[in-house]
Amino acid sequence: MFLVEGNKIICELFNSNFKIKEIFSTDPQKLDRTDVPITHVSENELKKISFLKNPKDSVALCYLKTEEKFEDQNVQLVLDGIQDPGNLGTIIRLADWFGIEQIICSEDTVDVYNPKVIMSTMGSFTRVNVVYTDLVEYLSETKNVNIGTDMEGENIYTFQKPEKFNLILGNEGNGMRPETEKLLQKSISIPRFGKSQSTESLNVSMAAGIILGQLFRV
Amino acid sequence: MFLVEGNKIICELFNSNFKIKEIFSTDPQKLDRTDVPITHVSENELKKISFLKNPKDSVALCYLKTEEKFEDQNVQLVLDGIQDPGNLGTIIRLADWFGIEQIICSEDTVDVYNPKVIMSTMGSFTRVNVVYTDLVEYLSETKNVNIGTDMEGENIYTFQKPEKFNLILGNEGNGMRPETEKLLQKSISIPRFGKSQSTESLNVSMAAGIILGQLFRV
Repeated sequence: MFLVEGNKIICELFNSNFKIKEIFSTDPQKLDRTDVPITHVSENELKKISFLKNPKDSVALCYLKTEEKFEDQNVQLVLDGIQDPGNLGTIIRLADWFGIEQIICSEDTVDVYNPKVIMSTMGSFTRVNVVYTDLVEYLSETKNVNIGTDMEGENIYTFQKPEKFNLILGNEGNGMRPETEKLLQKSISIPRFGKSQSTESLNVSMAAGIILGQLFRV
Repeated sequence: MFLVEGNKIICELFNSNFKIKEIFSTDPQKLDRTDVPITHVSENELKKISFLKNPKDSVALCYLKTEEKFEDQNVQLVLDGIQDPGNLGTIIRLADWFGIEQIICSEDTVDVYNPKVIMSTMGSFTRVNVVYTDLVEYLSETKNVNIGTDMEGENIYTFQKPEKFNLILGNEGNGMRPETEKLLQKSISIPRFGKSQSTESLNVSMAAGIILGQLFRV
């Protein structure tokens, strides 16, 4: 099971496929639901349950989704070893914004049910299907065009996106694994405008945002 | 004065206008500088100086920049009450990527010398000038075109950017202040592709990234 914190996000659960076991709330009336058991707790009790320093109004205890076989969608993100919970959360939120309904993760990508991931998705985890699988196997079999980022890749401003594709994003420090990189069919790059010679580049979720902003250009 | 943590970012200070007073390092030889006093400290001592739970190799004590009158650059970001240190850091890094050399902040925007801001810029604070001023006064007098974001604004994918402009970004929860909004000459919007009806939108730094990715399209 996993926790969802705060009435705002808990309300998004009601419109999703996630099942709530129980809610613990300092003000149950605010939630106004009769279909889920709600336990009234004190602020001190909520603090003991919550992962937050300053917990919000409520915490919901939810069932994990049962793992089902997934089918390729036309546009997907593929994550190869993303480690930072905030990055995964931001990427899920970004996918939701662009209407991308599925994210395929390598088995060592940070857990989507990590409380920090759930928090930083701002509820988007209810609308984006996140699955974990063996990436080498998956990328070898998919019919989507596998697109990665690379300093030498095609300029995103002129790149014509295929109808069906996977945008692959690598680990924060090390990028994609070599065995993942081998399975790319296309590579793209974001041109840099700043004069800095520093090797520090954009954060992976920011790069994803700028790329998607381009690929979805109408 | 303010602190900069970690050899990697400290080395970027050497190529900048910032002046270092003293460095405290667990391994001074690694830094290999004779022009700055470096004190050898134990890991325990470093832990007491550092703002980090797991401090890196060194901490540098630096002088704040002396405030000078600033002059408008052709492209600038203007921040109206950004509160989250991570957001300011990410926005500074983004500015650096796009070669934007100046950010104008309202007086209540989070302090650029906040340790979390400095950390999250990954050294970009050495290349982007961040100034604090009365925004109403500034925006009334600037010759740059003031551009804001608005759900009803012009689509960023067709918007033609003026030669000289300020992109104005509002507070995380409340957006721009009404008195700032009154001083906009143009407004733009990012079209949304997802089907979600949720009011949660993109994080302010992500929105900035997607907009700049478009405006700098070549």
